Amino acid sequence: METLKARASAQPLQDADDLINSVETFIFDCDGVIWKGDSLIDGVPETLDMLRSKGKRLVFVTNNSTKSRKQYGKKFETLGLNVNEEEIFASSFAAAAYLKSIDFPKDKKVYVIGEDGILKELELAGIQYLGGPEDGGKKIELKPGFYMEHDEDVGAVVVGFDRYFNYYKVQYGTLCIRENPGCLFIATNRDAVTHLTDAQEWAGGGSMVGAISGSTQREPVVVGKPSTFMMDYLSNKFGIQKSQICMVGDRLDTDILFGQNGGCKTLLVLSGVTSLSMLQGPDNKIQPDFYTNKISDFLSLKAATV
Amino acid sequence: METLKARASAQPLQDADDLINSVETFIFDCDGVIWKGDSLIDGVPETLDMLRSKGKRLVFVTNNSTKSRKQYGKKFETLGLNVNEEEIFASSFAAAAYLKSIDFPKDKKVYVIGEDGILKELELAGIQYLGGPEDGGKKIELKPGFYMEHDEDVGAVVVGFDRYFNYYKVQYGTLCIRENPGCLFIATNRDAVTHLTDAQEWAGGGSMVGAISGSTQREPVVVGKPSTFMMDYLSNKFGIQKSQICMVGDRLDTDILFGQNGGCKTLLVLSGVTSLSMLQGPDNKIQPDFYTNKISDFLSLKAATV
Repeated sequence: METLKARASAQPLQDADDLINSVETFIFDCDGVIWKGDSLIDGVPETLDMLRSKGKRLVFVTNNSTKSRKQYGKKFETLGLNVNEEEIFASSFAAAAYLKSIDFPKDKKVYVIGEDGILKELELAGIQYLGGPEDGGKKIELKPGFYMEHDEDVGAVVVGFDRYFNYYKVQYGTLCIRENPGCLFIATNRDAVTHLTDAQEWAGGGSMVGAISGSTQREPVVVGKPSTFMMDYLSNKFGIQKSQICMVGDRLDTDILFGQNGGCKTLLVLSGVTSLSMLQGPDNKIQPDFYTNKISDFLSLKAATV
Repeated sequence: METLKARASAQPLQDADDLINSVETFIFDCDGVIWKGDSLIDGVPETLDMLRSKGKRLVFVTNNSTKSRKQYGKKFETLGLNVNEEEIFASSFAAAAYLKSIDFPKDKKVYVIGEDGILKELELAGIQYLGGPEDGGKKIELKPGFYMEHDEDVGAVVVGFDRYFNYYKVQYGTLCIRENPGCLFIATNRDAVTHLTDAQEWAGGGSMVGAISGSTQREPVVVGKPSTFMMDYLSNKFGIQKSQICMVGDRLDTDILFGQNGGCKTLLVLSGVTSLSMLQGPDNKIQPDFYTNKISDFLSLKAATV
């Protein structure tokens, strides 16, 4: 009854302790929840400390694939947050973890349309790759009769956000997917928007994935949010029941949907891209269990009940 | 009854005269029908001469937007074909014609993701534009806080095949579509494949359109095949009844669908991307009225009946 009511229309979070006590793990989206661009959101360090002191497991999930877990760790450090690399799940890591989970053959290679983070994670997973930033400056020769060779050992094309996206990469990835038997098409995410800088919204990984989908007429396997791959992975790895997880995010169509697809509790924070009027607007069909302004409300809402 | 039978399963063309006498206009796709890459297909000049001598109107339609009508005219000339610029309908022209047909305001501009043909046609139509090849070398500055300005007078983004596609263009086009009220998103075509060279298939305009669709979460207005815009335009301009048109093409999902969407007779030629086994395969749902090897079969099938 309670769940039904909550799904029908999100409730403002009123008693943080109730929510905190009802779960053992919090999964946080990063951008719009922990930080905005390069600035930490108010009250985040104290909130994370409080949750840790209560013995909660904290996991940080991001669809951003431009950095590896290790590189993300440095971002947390720079912002003064004490977060272990093992607590970070970026979609770059998810792509490598997915390939390991399906026993991607050792003699096959991955062609990467994306940035450094994906390469780093593939390397750590012991998977051979080509492409990535190295192909950013390549151009197609336009001589009559020109034929682009491609590596027949490519068994998967991984596509993520790529500032250095070009036609060479589109054609190379398309050839692999179309001509190499069984070649996989894996997307780190299909986000319309990403946060290259906090001055405006930037076209996201959805554009690179849309380009390859448009030329191959294939749909990708998505490993980032809102696909449940990362949730399933976390749940298996740590032996967590999904009902014992609360997913906290600022986006309805990735974070909240991700939590709901995984069968978790969901909390929308209004510190990122979603406003209260968007949540309550007639076009929105995704209702989290709860919403609040920012995660540090955990502290004040808690204090109020003492 | 005849039509029903033909739609249910394509018939081999047996009596060309019958087909020729039943229509007043032939619309030909170019690549795979008239030429392949830079080589003329056998018997094409004689076939076109024969049709002209019988008083048929000939129209050449192509989804390729990289050239203007005038530039296409040169390609016909180089191949030794006597074709008037007015007989050529490229999707670059269709984009400009569409904007004129909706009275696109004189004080608004078009942002172009595509090559020279689109710019030339917009210029001829008296429509202001920016972007195109000029933005091919532009890069995004990655300084923290960087904000990309965009022109608020852009009222339409036209997207076609673009060898010099890059992230700058994706972001610029996305900003216009997302932030300029009423800004249109127009695609010259969504072809998965194009023929940059005849040595292999190349990722087509569908990849550029897919990228913008992925970042804007909007679907474009398509002016090229298989949308009927060009057919409607032709029919209005020349006062042709659509049942008096035969569409001749080598692709089921663009050419034949285009003809069927427009209510025309349809003839598939096997001189391009579609083989007989693809036409007759269980996955194919698009059946033209007739099929034949190449358009010069019009000559021999005709001769046989004399």
